[in-house]
Amino acid sequence: MQAPAQMGYDRAITVFSPDGRLFQVEYAREAVKRGTTAVGIRAIDGVALLVDKRVTTKLLEPESIEKIFQIDDHIGAATSGLVADARVLIDHARVEAQINRITYDEPIGIEELAKKICDFKYAYTQSGGVRPFGTSLLIAGVDDSRARLFETDPSGALLEYKATAIGSGRDDTMEIFEKKYADNIKLEDAVLLGLEALHGISEGLFNAATIEIGVIEFSTRKFRVLAPSEVETYVDKVTKMQASEGKGKEKKKGK
Amino acid sequence: MQAPAQMGYDRAITVFSPDGRLFQVEYAREAVKRGTTAVGIRAIDGVALLVDKRVTTKLLEPESIEKIFQIDDHIGAATSGLVADARVLIDHARVEAQINRITYDEPIGIEELAKKICDFKYAYTQSGGVRPFGTSLLIAGVDDSRARLFETDPSGALLEYKATAIGSGRDDTMEIFEKKYADNIKLEDAVLLGLEALHGISEGLFNAATIEIGVIEFSTRKFRVLAPSEVETYVDKVTKMQASEGKGKEKKKGK
Amino acid sequence: MQAPAQMGYDRAITVFSPDGRLFQVEYAREAVKRGTTAVGIRAIDGVALLVDKRVTTKLLEPESIEKIFQIDDHIGAATSGLVADARVLIDHARVEAQINRITYDEPIGIEELAKKICDFKYAYTQSGGVRPFGTSLLIAGVDDSRARLFETDPSGALLEYKATAIGSGRDDTMEIFEKKYADNIKLEDAVLLGLEALHGISEGLFNAATIEIGVIEFSTRKFRVLAPSEVETYVDKVTKMQASEGKGKEKKKGK
Amino acid sequence: MQAPAQMGYDRAITVFSPDGRLFQVEYAREAVKRGTTAVGIRAIDGVALLVDKRVTTKLLEPESIEKIFQIDDHIGAATSGLVADARVLIDHARVEAQINRITYDEPIGIEELAKKICDFKYAYTQSGGVRPFGTSLLIAGVDDSRARLFETDPSGALLEYKATAIGSGRDDTMEIFEKKYADNIKLEDAVLLGLEALHGISEGLFNAATIEIGVIEFSTRKFRVLAPSEVETYVDKVTKMQASEGKGKEKKKGK
Amino acid sequence: MQAPAQMGYDRAITVFSPDGRLFQVEYAREAVKRGTTAVGIRAIDGVALLVDKRVTTKLLEPESIEKIFQIDDHIGAATSGLVADARVLIDHARVEAQINRITYDEPIGIEELAKKICDFKYAYTQSGGVRPFGTSLLIAGVDDSRARLFETDPSGALLEYKATAIGSGRDDTMEIFEKKYADNIKLEDAVLLGLEALHGISEGLFNAATIEIGVIEFSTRKFRVLAPSEVETYVDKVTKMQASEGKGKEKKKGK
Amino acid sequence: MQAPAQMGYDRAITVFSPDGRLFQVEYAREAVKRGTTAVGIRAIDGVALLVDKRVTTKLLEPESIEKIFQIDDHIGAATSGLVADARVLIDHARVEAQINRITYDEPIGIEELAKKICDFKYAYTQSGGVRPFGTSLLIAGVDDSRARLFETDPSGALLEYKATAIGSGRDDTMEIFEKKYADNIKLEDAVLLGLEALHGISEGLFNAATIEIGVIEFSTRKFRVLAPSEVETYVDKVTKMQASEGKGKEKKKGK
Amino acid sequence: MQAPAQMGYDRAITVFSPDGRLFQVEYAREAVKRGTTAVGIRAIDGVALLVDKRVTTKLLEPESIEKIFQIDDHIGAATSGLVADARVLIDHARVEAQINRITYDEPIGIEELAKKICDFKYAYTQSGGVRPFGTSLLIAGVDDSRARLFETDPSGALLEYKATAIGSGRDDTMEIFEKKYADNIKLEDAVLLGLEALHGISEGLFNAATIEIGVIEFSTRKFRVLAPSEVETYVDKVTKMQASEGKGKEKKKGK
Repeated sequence: MQAPAQMGYDRAITVFSPDGRLFQVEYAREAVKRGTTAVGIRAIDGVALLVDKRVTTKLLEPESIEKIFQIDDHIGAATSGLVADARVLIDHARVEAQINRITYDEPIGIEELAKKICDFKYAYTQSGGVRPFGTSLLIAGVDDSRARLFETDPSGALLEYKATAIGSGRDDTMEIFEKKYADNIKLEDAVLLGLEALHGISEGLFNAATIEIGVIEFSTRKFRVLAPSEVETYVDKVTKMQASEGKGKEKKKGK
Repeated sequence: MQAPAQMGYDRAITVFSPDGRLFQVEYAREAVKRGTTAVGIRAIDGVALLVDKRVTTKLLEPESIEKIFQIDDHIGAATSGLVADARVLIDHARVEAQINRITYDEPIGIEELAKKICDFKYAYTQSGGVRPFGTSLLIAGVDDSRARLFETDPSGALLEYKATAIGSGRDDTMEIFEKKYADNIKLEDAVLLGLEALHGISEGLFNAATIEIGVIEFSTRKFRVLAPSEVETYVDKVTKMQASEGKGKEKKKGK
Repeated sequence: MQAPAQMGYDRAITVFSPDGRLFQVEYAREAVKRGTTAVGIRAIDGVALLVDKRVTTKLLEPESIEKIFQIDDHIGAATSGLVADARVLIDHARVEAQINRITYDEPIGIEELAKKICDFKYAYTQSGGVRPFGTSLLIAGVDDSRARLFETDPSGALLEYKATAIGSGRDDTMEIFEKKYADNIKLEDAVLLGLEALHGISEGLFNAATIEIGVIEFSTRKFRVLAPSEVETYVDKVTKMQASEGKGKEKKKGK
Repeated sequence: MQAPAQMGYDRAITVFSPDGRLFQVEYAREAVKRGTTAVGIRAIDGVALLVDKRVTTKLLEPESIEKIFQIDDHIGAATSGLVADARVLIDHARVEAQINRITYDEPIGIEELAKKICDFKYAYTQSGGVRPFGTSLLIAGVDDSRARLFETDPSGALLEYKATAIGSGRDDTMEIFEKKYADNIKLEDAVLLGLEALHGISEGLFNAATIEIGVIEFSTRKFRVLAPSEVETYVDKVTKMQASEGKGKEKKKGK
Repeated sequence: MQAPAQMGYDRAITVFSPDGRLFQVEYAREAVKRGTTAVGIRAIDGVALLVDKRVTTKLLEPESIEKIFQIDDHIGAATSGLVADARVLIDHARVEAQINRITYDEPIGIEELAKKICDFKYAYTQSGGVRPFGTSLLIAGVDDSRARLFETDPSGALLEYKATAIGSGRDDTMEIFEKKYADNIKLEDAVLLGLEALHGISEGLFNAATIEIGVIEFSTRKFRVLAPSEVETYVDKVTKMQASEGKGKEKKKGK
Repeated sequence: MQAPAQMGYDRAITVFSPDGRLFQVEYAREAVKRGTTAVGIRAIDGVALLVDKRVTTKLLEPESIEKIFQIDDHIGAATSGLVADARVLIDHARVEAQINRITYDEPIGIEELAKKICDFKYAYTQSGGVRPFGTSLLIAGVDDSRARLFETDPSGALLEYKATAIGSGRDDTMEIFEKKYADNIKLEDAVLLGLEALHGISEGLFNAATIEIGVIEFSTRKFRVLAPSEVETYVDKVTKMQASEGKGKEKKKGK
Repeated sequence: MQAPAQMGYDRAITVFSPDGRLFQVEYAREAVKRGTTAVGIRAIDGVALLVDKRVTTKLLEPESIEKIFQIDDHIGAATSGLVADARVLIDHARVEAQINRITYDEPIGIEELAKKICDFKYAYTQSGGVRPFGTSLLIAGVDDSRARLFETDPSGALLEYKATAIGSGRDDTMEIFEKKYADNIKLEDAVLLGLEALHGISEGLFNAATIEIGVIEFSTRKFRVLAPSEVETYVDKVTKMQASEGKGKEKKKGK
């Protein structure tokens, strides 16, 4: 990925390269790019988070691979990258949410929480003796006023998206969202769009059993992870759609 | 194992490689791969942990090679990798279990304990001046609701398995489990399956005297290490089974 | 950018090169040169800050890319360089402004605040174990006596400008200001001049939706970010002006 | 001893090699392999520790070369490796034994003491800025229930043996024990076997004056170092035995 | 500037070179040699400090480039080298001066203050983890008894001069002073001599607007920076003098 | 002295070499081998310490070269190696001796004191950031029961000798002691033997004025440094003896 | 100065070279060898310190180059090497002298003070993160009993001399002292001898104005720096002596 000329500038987060880059932070982003794909989509009536955990052995309990987490009643998060780093960040987020409830007797704002996670991540990119977190987070929630979807990366940067993806399938997934996402999308369609995106990068291993979906509806303001049966219903729909589309593509390629 | 290009990125846990890997954590996993094989199998009526300690000198007291440990009444653990690292982790786990009993007057949850061990391991993968633990643990126990089997690795990642193995024989053992493990397996059959797996990687040195077996039954909720006579009975059964199977394979190879 | 002879002198902020340079501080300045362009222009009746955020995907919420910030009622700032570093500096500036209000019951002086930010930045260029901030700031405000526009760079140096720019388009932008800036410029014309400069470096991607403008007028002494409609009106004017100028240039080139 | 490929992985105890080894701990074991040979043998009525100090100058007081130490009434230890490291470990062991007496008003268990020494050693293999102890210990004692013989190495690992050796002559000595050790050996015969082993590696410099023997009998439960006259009596017996055996071997070789 | 043989001895202030030099301190002096030229001249009735700030863009406020500072009523200073380092040293000097007033209720001695600055600088040349200050200071003031002019360099060394210069034009300037300085010079003539020296190194860019002059007269004992009109009057005189001299030189060269 | 293969293992006391050596401790021993020779000899009625300080300029006060020190009434010490390190160790020894008197109201034991010095030295061979002491000590004294002579080296190891030497002439001196030392030697003869040894390595520069002798007699239990006249008397005797012996050797060589 | 083989052993004061040397301390001594020459001579009625400051520009105030310092009423010191290091050591010495007066109400002993300076210097040669002082000191004073002259070097070693020199001219100067110094020299003659020595290394730049002389007489017990007129009288005498001697040498060379 980098020429030998960069060697040496990329060994510590306290060293800039001659062209002003912090290679260790960029390498931590590579850890995210090696992770499972997680997508988030904001709809007019809520937000959806989806992950394909891609478990390939029946000996493993799929639910022990946690990729979607509840942070507070009204906030959920999806992660990609180093799994142990993710757990620490999720714990930190939960504590911040609780501190807000105890201190102000009200739920934390989605953006406020996202910024606190960024501050925490940032602290690991400024001083020596530590390493950045090799994990990105999608943070989804509903505020008083509206549904929100944030993405934080290892540098501590924060961006708000309508639809986004992190992990190994980011590029392909974003391409699909650019084409198909509409501002007036409904939550149910958002889930279907997310599944369509995951299916697009599944290399033939698309499987309802290892897909995890979390949603938060405007009406309830409660984040919840869908039950396996709900997931299956959605997956069935999408698989059929994709199967036909796939055949279409095959034909094209075949020519 | 790695090309010269990685040299330098793999000397500290605070340095990511250009492709986002933490080599020191991966190298600590190699320490586990060099260890003795430990297997864990979850049955409908309990969980079993088995290790073949492979002692080759009669001058050594086999029981001083501890690979299976009781953590609390209802929890046991098997280790593979650096033995001194294992002892520290086991001590830490026992203290956590006792703290729970003292604080809440009830036994610690299996998953909760497993997460606490992971947090402890994780702390050694984030800051400079220390090294990761070169040890994986299988944690087996019975909760109010069900039997659990967790595996933690040097990164602090946590996974729940139905059947799994750590140490030098992991790959061969997992292959056997993929083929023969069934969700409705009974504890006795689980022990036999574990022995079969250990026998498969024993290179002709299978010996009841150096095999250690720990089980926890749903009925008693007490983890216990089997007596030598119990182990011997199990081993005898498996040895006979394998001997005949082995002959079959020999014949095949011989052709 | 540097010859092999400098290798080694540029790995730490506590090491001077043989010709008396602190390469790490200079490399942090490179991080700024890679950033989006931000411009500041002082007029006789106020100060204007402008940034072209250059968002290229419709999936991203443009307002989540913050480049112009309010520090206090009477002070705004624009940033260029590492975004997470910028957030920390902005937070620090806001706290300093509030401390002044609480301690002395009056708004902080613009220059005083700028110096405090410089002191903070400087602390990261003198001792080992940290890295300089990869961010420059334009600080604009109105004091009792006059409008002020300061620029701070990663070394902690501070300069006051009539018109200036930071980020990737600095050189081209400054050239335009040298030619067209007049001491008696009015705020409205200053905004137009700033847009003209941003247009000049826009490579055909000039777009009102991703341009952010902050102004502080002498009459109100309140910093405010312009509403999208206001921005659009200004952009329309400039686009027309530039389009005709652009054609003129095309013709010249075509000869 | 190691190929160039390991260079760099072996400079710090906080760095794993690509195949999961901690070279600094392994090198500390080499310090033990360069030490004088110490042997320990468990008998049915006690345990014996023997060392050949190999003093070659009459100007030195042999007793100032301490290789066998009393830890508590019922515990003795023999060391091999760096002598200053040994003294620190012995001091630590004595303090632990006294703490137990003061806290619980009873002698410390042999295994408990051995584990405490291992914990102490281990602490020097996990964090940077220190080095492992270059010393192994044989710990011999009598508990309520039985005679015990433990060996600890620089990694902090602990094993219990029936008969074992540390130091430069370990391999040759263990070979003799494998052949001649019997579980029902009596303490007197154990001492003779130990001397036989030391004689076997003495390269013709076997000398009662520099041999140190410590024993603890089941009957007395008191560790004591044998008087020079006692040692001489044992040595005489063994020398005669070996002389005749030696001749036998010579003859064989001579053929 | 240095041969490859010195490589490695020049990376830390805690490392002497084989010939007893502290390269990092010498390199910090190079930072001063790259700075703008500042001169100081002691007269019988006061002391003068002069700097040519050489601003080349009209967009910059010249007064924001501070090179001459008031430290206390009776003390001024001129700096050359890293500007952020200079600000820290000036702040430190001001605090020391105030501490003296508060503690002893009298103005600090010029030499005493100069030594305190040296002590502060020195502290950054003795221990690891920091870097020396890349700034020299000229300190001018009037004590009870006489006018004083001190120069401190990055090593913390202190010298008193009748006339001196720091920064890029030091050598040429000192040559002029050696020729033209007289012990009985009057303050007005000292200012003219200083301007003559700055003119000599101005490379045709001599400009009253960017020249800063600070003086302290024996009669008032108050340090003050000259008003632009005063500077202009002086500069006019010198420019005329130099223009004619310059022509003379041209003629010489032309031959 | 060492092959390139050891390079890198010998830069820190916290790094073992592949064959288990601590090179920095061994190099500190080399500092001792470069020092002046000091000898110690135990007699039946006391102990003697002797040093040849070898002063070659009349401008130096010989007594300012301290090589023999009184530690307490009943203890003396001779040093070889780095002189500043020696002074620190001697100060430490004196403090330990006084602490014993204050705490227990009785003189410290010779061996106890020697061990305390070893503990102090040892602390500098275990952790990073410091270096071992480049000094060996001979510690001589009289206990209740007998005369003692200890030697400590930079590793913190401790040995008791009848006669020994440290410094550059150790090997030659020990050879003489091996031949001529007898267990029933009297103190006066011990002094003569020590002088004989020093004469043997004096390369023709043997001189009473620079020889220092310290003795402690069993009868007085007071350590004292001999007066110049006493030294001269001894030296005269030995010089005559050696002169004749030397002639004898010359003759032999001459053949 | 050193062969490549020493490279790497000479970068830190905590690293011994293979032959037991501390190169960083030796390099600090080189800093002294590059300094101005200072001489000290003990006479029967006092001690004299002399330095030739060798100022070559009239713009510098010679008295601001301090090389001879009063430490206490009865003690003076001359320095050579890094000037900022010297100032710190002199300050430390003055504080120690005052502490003694306050604590014991009597002047500090000359040797006691010299040892305290050595202890201070030594502390910078034992632990990492600092560098040794690049300065030697001559300490002259009068005790109750006699005149004393000590020399301390960067290692913290201490020697007492009758006559000695530090700095670049040490070797030549010591040669003169070896020839001409007599134990019964009077203070006036000692000053003349010191000037003769400085003249011998002056390379034709001998000048009363830059020579500094400090003396302490037995009669007054007060250290004082000679007035310029006193220095001039001495210098005149010596210049005449040397001029004639010089002519003699010229003639010799001329042959």
